Order: sequence, then C-alpha cells, then structure tokens
Amino acid sequence: MSDKLISRSEDFNEWYNTLVLKADLADYGPVRGTMIVKPYGWALWENIQQALDRRFKATGHQNAAFPMFIPESFIKREAKHVAGFSPELAVVTHAGGEKLEEPLVVRPTSETIIGHTYAKWVQSYRDLPILINLWNSVVRWELRTKLFLRTSEFYWQEGHTAHATAEEAAFETRQMLDVYTDFAVNDMAIPVIPGEKSEAERFAGADRTFTIEAMMGDRRALQAGTSHNLGQNFARAFDIKYLDQNNTLQYCWTTSWGLSTRVIGAIIMVHGDDQGLILPPRLAPYQTVIVPIFRSDEEKGPVMAAVERLGRELAAGGIRVKVDDREQLTPGFKFNDWELRGVPSRVEVGPRDVANNSVALARRDVPGRAGKQFVAQDGLVDTVRQLLDDIQAAMLEKARQFREANTHMPQEYDSFKEAVQDGFARVWWAGTPADEARIKEETKATIRCFPLDQPEASGVCFYTGRPGGRMAIFARAY
Amino acid sequence: MSDKLISRSEDFNEWYNTLVLKADLADYGPVRGTMIVKPYGWALWENIQQALDRRFKATGHQNAAFPMFIPESFIKREAKHVAGFSPELAVVTHAGGEKLEEPLVVRPTSETIIGHTYAKWVQSYRDLPILINLWNSVVRWELRTKLFLRTSEFYWQEGHTAHATAEEAAFETRQMLDVYTDFAVNDMAIPVIPGEKSEAERFAGADRTFTIEAMMGDRRALQAGTSHNLGQNFARAFDIKYLDQNNTLQYCWTTSWGLSTRVIGAIIMVHGDDQGLILPPRLAPYQTVIVPIFRSDEEKGPVMAAVERLGRELAAGGIRVKVDDREQLTPGFKFNDWELRGVPSRVEVGPRDVANNSVALARRDVPGRAGKQFVAQDGLVDTVRQLLDDIQAAMLEKARQFREANTHMPQEYDSFKEAVQDGFARVWWAGTPADEARIKEETKATIRCFPLDQPEASGVCFYTGRPGGRMAIFARAY
Repeated sequence: MSDKLISRSEDFNEWYNTLVLKADLADYGPVRGTMIVKPYGWALWENIQQALDRRFKATGHQNAAFPMFIPESFIKREAKHVAGFSPELAVVTHAGGEKLEEPLVVRPTSETIIGHTYAKWVQSYRDLPILINLWNSVVRWELRTKLFLRTSEFYWQEGHTAHATAEEAAFETRQMLDVYTDFAVNDMAIPVIPGEKSEAERFAGADRTFTIEAMMGDRRALQAGTSHNLGQNFARAFDIKYLDQNNTLQYCWTTSWGLSTRVIGAIIMVHGDDQGLILPPRLAPYQTVIVPIFRSDEEKGPVMAAVERLGRELAAGGIRVKVDDREQLTPGFKFNDWELRGVPSRVEVGPRDVANNSVALARRDVPGRAGKQFVAQDGLVDTVRQLLDDIQAAMLEKARQFREANTHMPQEYDSFKEAVQDGFARVWWAGTPADEARIKEETKATIRCFPLDQPEASGVCFYTGRPGGRMAIFARAY
Repeated sequence: MSDKLISRSEDFNEWYNTLVLKADLADYGPVRGTMIVKPYGWALWENIQQALDRRFKATGHQNAAFPMFIPESFIKREAKHVAGFSPELAVVTHAGGEKLEEPLVVRPTSETIIGHTYAKWVQSYRDLPILINLWNSVVRWELRTKLFLRTSEFYWQEGHTAHATAEEAAFETRQMLDVYTDFAVNDMAIPVIPGEKSEAERFAGADRTFTIEAMMGDRRALQAGTSHNLGQNFARAFDIKYLDQNNTLQYCWTTSWGLSTRVIGAIIMVHGDDQGLILPPRLAPYQTVIVPIFRSDEEKGPVMAAVERLGRELAAGGIRVKVDDREQLTPGFKFNDWELRGVPSRVEVGPRDVANNSVALARRDVPGRAGKQFVAQDGLVDTVRQLLDDIQAAMLEKARQFREANTHMPQEYDSFKEAVQDGFARVWWAGTPADEARIKEETKATIRCFPLDQPEASGVCFYTGRPGGRMAIFARAY
C-alpha cells in the first residue's frame, strides 16, 4: 500500500485497480475471479442497500430469500435463458460425500427457481400480484476479474414480480427503472440515461429490457441497473397460471430487475480523481472526518476537547462522522488518507480554531485552498449539512457537464468511429441487428440504449441512411 | 392451507411443520434440504438482524463480505475442522463449461478463508484487532429437512476476529456470548442459559465453545447461538502472524461466533400455541393489526375513517401496524389469520367503538376474553406501546417458568433417565467424554452446557460418584 496512486489520466484502468485496493474497498479472494468486500466497501454497499430498499418497500415490495442451488434442468426450461447463461455456470456435482443424481447450479440469477415456485404459489387472481425482492449474491463464471465490475460472485438485489395482466407487468418494469433512475441521480449523483436495450443486448428470456446507462470518467459507458419485462416467457416455461375472475386459466406476466455492487465501480469511475475516491454524501460511510491538529500536550488537551464535543454534536445531528484520533500520524497523512477514501468533507481543529471558536471546513470535491473555509463552531451541524447538500448537487452537475461535453452527434459512420473513441454517440438508428453486430465488430461500440426521452420526430439513420430512425446512444462499454 | 393446525400437545413435530407453512414463514425449495424464506419470515429475520447488528456495531464490529467458494485444500488445513465438516460439504467441480483444476467447496463456515485472508492483512500489532462480521448463507448438506432448524443452506451471521493476546480473544468470546444472551432474553423473550460446551460438543477447531441453550415447548433443548475461542489453532494452520511491539513475530489469537435462522425455530417452539405463532413484540413484523368491523356500507364509512386514522397514528408513533382492510373476509377469519401469524396485539374497531371513541384491544398471548379490553382511542399509541411491553415481559416470564418447572435435579442415573425424557437435568458432572458418549447412547441426552452461573461449591457426580463435579445441564436436543 506504500506505492503511489497512478494518475487517472495516465492509466485509467490501473488507477481504478489500485484505488479499489488502496482505499480499502475490496480485495481479491483466493479463488480466481472472486472478491472480498472489505468493511469500508461493505459500509458503502449497506448505504446503497438502504437507499434502494426504502424505495422498494415504498412501491409495495417485500424481501424474501430463495436457495442458491437450482436443479440444472430448470435452467434449460427457457430456451433463450439457457443459451445466455450456460457458459457461465458453476456446477455442484457432489454433496454430502456422494455424487448427486442431478447436478445443481449455483444461481446465476433466480428467474427459473422463482418461476418454479410462483407456479406453486399462484392459483387465483387473488394471489396476484407477487412483488418480491431478494438481496443475495449470484455466480457467473469469470476469469478476467475487475473488482466490483466483473467477478465470479457478485452481490446484488433481484426483484421478481408476477402479475395478472400485460399492462401491470409493463407498469412494474418501468416503475422499477424509475426507481433506479431516481436512486442513481439523487443518491449516487450519477446522471444516468434511462432507456431501452436493443434486441442484441436484451436479458436472456426477456421481451423488453430497460437500463440506466452512465458515462464513466474515461468516457466509456456502464450499465448500472436493468429492468426486464419477461412477458409470458417464464410463465409458459414454468407453468405459472392463475384462474381469473371469469374462472379462466391464464398465464401470468412476470418481470425481474436488478442492480449490483457494480454501481460501486460506477461511483469510483464517475467521481474519483487523482487523489482518490470522491463519495457522494448521501451514500458515504463517513460524511465528514474531524482531524485534530496540535504540536504539544499543552495544545492537545483543548483541541481534543473541542474535537470530541464537535464529533458528538455532528453525530447527534444525524451526520455520519469519524473522529480521527489516531496517534503517531501527522495531520497531513490523515488528510491524504481520508481524501483517498473519498470522505466528502473534513473538519480541522487546531489551537487557533479553539481560540477563535472556529474550524477549518474542507470539501473533497474542490481540491486545495479553494475548497476550504473557516466557519464558526456554533451551528456547525447546519453548516456541514448544507455543505454536504452542496457537494451532492455539485457532483451531479459536474458529472452531467462531463457527459454532455463528451456526447457527440455524428452524422455518418466516419465521424461516428471517432466519436465512440471519445465518448457517447447520439445518433438516429434504423439498422438491423446484423448492422449493430458489424459496428460492434469494427468499433467495439454497442447500442447502450434507446433513451426514453426521444425527440418528437424521427430521423435518418447515420449508418443505413434509412428514414424513421430512433434516437440511440452508442458507446464502448464496461 | 385449508387443513386445520394440529394441536401442539397432540403432535409437537407435526404442529411445528404445519405452522411454519401455514403462517407463511417459509416453504420447501425444489432441491431436497433447501428452504425458501417467505416475506413474512424474512421480515422477522430482518428484525433479528437489526437487533443483533446494532449490538455488533456498538461493540466495535464492522460488516464485510467474503466469497462463498473456498478451495477444497483450505478445509484440510486445520485437522479437527476437516474432520468435522468434510461429510457435509457441497463441492463445485465444474465451472464456465470446464472441469476445475481444484474443486471448490461452498462455505460451510468461513474460518478457513478468513484465516487465509487475515494472514495477508495482518503484519503488525497495529493491524489488530480485526473485528469483522458477515451476514450470509452457508451450506451443510442435510437430507432430513426441518424448516429453520435443519436445512442444507441456512442464513446466519458469522463473526471472525483476530487479536494480539489470548486475554483479548477470551474477552471477545465471552463478550459475544453476552451479546447473544442479551438479544435472546430481551428481544426473543427466550430465557437462555449461557454456558460452556463439553469437549464432545465443541466447534471443530475451537479451544473452547460457549453456547446459549433454550428449552423448547416440548421440553427439548435448542442451541441458539455459539461463540468460539479458536486459540491459535487457525492462526497456526493459516499462518496469521504479527510483529509485536518488541519486533517479535507472534501468532494471533482468533475467535468466531454465529447465530442463524434456527432462532426463528426457537421463537416458534418456545412461544407458539394451538392457535399458531406468538411473536415477541420487539421482533414481530407487525406489532399490532387493526381489524375493522361493520355490517353495512353505512357502518363502513365511519369505521374505516377511524381505522385509517388510528393506523396513521400508530405508525407515526413508531408501532409496526397493519391495517387489514381486505374485502370479502369476515372479522372472525381475520382474527384467526393474525392469531395464526402471531401478531402480538389486535385493535378491533366497530360502529359502537366509533360511537364510544373506544376500541377493543386484544393481546395474543392471553387467549379469549381475558386478553381483551376496551380502551380509549385517545392515547392509543401509548396504550398499545405499554401493552407490547407487558406482552414482551409476560412472554419471557412464562417461558422462564416453563423451563424452571421442567428442570429436574436427579441424584442418580435412574431418575436422570426419567428427567431427560421430561425436560432438563441439572446435575453435578465429573465424568469422562466416554461416560458422556455412553449416556447419549442410552438416553439421547447430551451435555447442553456447563452454565456460566455455577454454584460456589462443587458436588458429587450423579453418574460416576466422583467428587469435584461441575454443574451441567443435560437434555435431549434439536
């Protein structure tokens, strides 16, 4: 951990990998492809969980838990699903000292076991809707690990709902996309673009997949959450049927939606800088850190008294505060340490501050003197609370400006090729899946989404020259 | 779900199995031995998690997440550990479409992967202590399932700590036992006996195992949580070493402690009755349910207005309240339904209550008229809050009296044999592990623990006649 953090512009990839380790967010597990989420990273995830869980419950969902083991045969019941997930499965063949009659897969996602179970639970329209969410981990075998972005096991939530009508399922799919958008924008300070996936990027087994797409600091895209309208595909594969009010047997309509620890990668890559993480105040494990400054035992007494009093006041005011009273470390070392870990604000208290009844208050998102002010100790809770709101808003605005500045509108393929090397391309699209595949082959860029927010008119496709195109966002993606 | 709940005295086992399903706590998973925890059961578990997590954080612990996959070779590093867990392992042999070079086990518990990782993380005394807790699920292969009590995959927390000295590890082990005891007594309303396990019942790899033991409604014992002093066993097996202040390399001292969804089984079996669950107010997903009573639309209007107003008031007062406004169900059906699900209190509002500005308030733990009173709508929040406190205290007291009434003090083996058919036997014990094994063989009773609360004197062993015995609790156990 003694090596310096490489600069973001120099090598974004290396900057990311080093930062995750140095900021104590996560570590590599002993099995290739696995991740240990360390306490600081998990505290961030717990805040993310709470922010989402509150929204899930407010929209009528309940949590539950389903087994991690799924009979291998279940995966094969939905044709597209098996094609999509088979190559990534981890398989349990032995248990309790014996070979199993049927191998079990460790869930890559739970649509199949949910389908099997809902078929048991649902008899009549009175049993609908079922609105369940699971917080768990899933396994998709990966050899090239990138912490938080691509690991064999990752943590997420998966919502699974069943409805009586197509309309209700469509409403649910969009409602949960709205929940994700609201969370991303307001809590992560990430200006995501909500939209629909193209056929090529759809979830294996879905009729329609919606997504929120974000631009990272290296101008690549990251899919930060998805919401799938599964139509009747899983209902037919697993026989989820209900008797309607006319006593007719009907297939259900189902949805699923998920958001994972991958968003921690997004927070790092959207907001971080050469000094380290910058965490959005709403989600940061510590919203402010208090660093005492003194040169002698004589100074230490009154400084620590003020530090501890202010720490108690901030905590009582509902601010997540850390008092850094570590011995044998200089204030400068502590500043760097908490900047690396992305704590949004810092309170410094020295002898002069004690005398003046003031503190120095620094904001992480504005480096150096420009981000530092001297404020009164009286009313510090309100001052810090206001600063945190300002930081949250400024982070969102900065990310939005960055995305806008790096979103291009090429009119034909040559300028498109340049555009996707350097950000998002916003273009009219009327091509075929084969056209899309060719573009991916040639540029590595894919359709991230058709934004929900479409211009009223349609336009001429930049690639095929066909009229009637929808607005699409192309980008190279994580 | 239409079949009646069998009475507890008639067939305790069948009563339990039926109740878990009928009260919507859990269901069987498709793979033999697995469990689905349904929303009502998971809401109970979430309350248990919060009650424990608060205590873990107050004692300085942080949450983290470790991978579920452990290289098979890790399990073999600690000799007693491998002997204890090998027969129960689920093994992943294939992943990503290929046979793995080394099979992976799905964690049965995480001491080994923790040991491997702490060895990397700990260099110096400054890195200690490590105080980490994990909320996850683990797999121990079981074929004879009993929901919550014995399933192949179960949910729990596992704490894993590393310390510089034996004294600190001993303190931690006992501190976490105290945390479990406090939680069990004050939140679950279960008067557990904290004590130490005999050698035969110790965790595989521990120097000392402490436990909290509870008496179920059928007078059998259930181990509700354990705290292990692992000494230097795992530190030596995984090379967890630190440089002390004198620059000498030392092995760490480690502990682990766990409590699982099995305690939901304990809550059911300690408190439940022939009508169903009785949930302790501190943990109940709903602490009170409001049932409207009306015969006509004319009555419905004012009744529902009062019901909704009272519902808002109770919720605003911090009481977890459910308004049961389901149509087409009679009040009597709803009473039975919520009694089955163990909601601690019930508010009934009919036309006469509206006229009198009163409600009927029933407590679940006292059946029939004796448990029902008419109280004013004014101040209902305080009235319900007080009632919930009374119920919580009464449930604990009732369970304590039941345990005392069924704890026997046999003086010799013949009366011991009778005693353990009918409750706990509190006896002086100075026997050998072989003696203990023989008693288990002959009576199915084991030493549940040597209670921490020992008489000052020692006594003559009921079995061997030897002097110097410690007080032990023997019982048949789940």
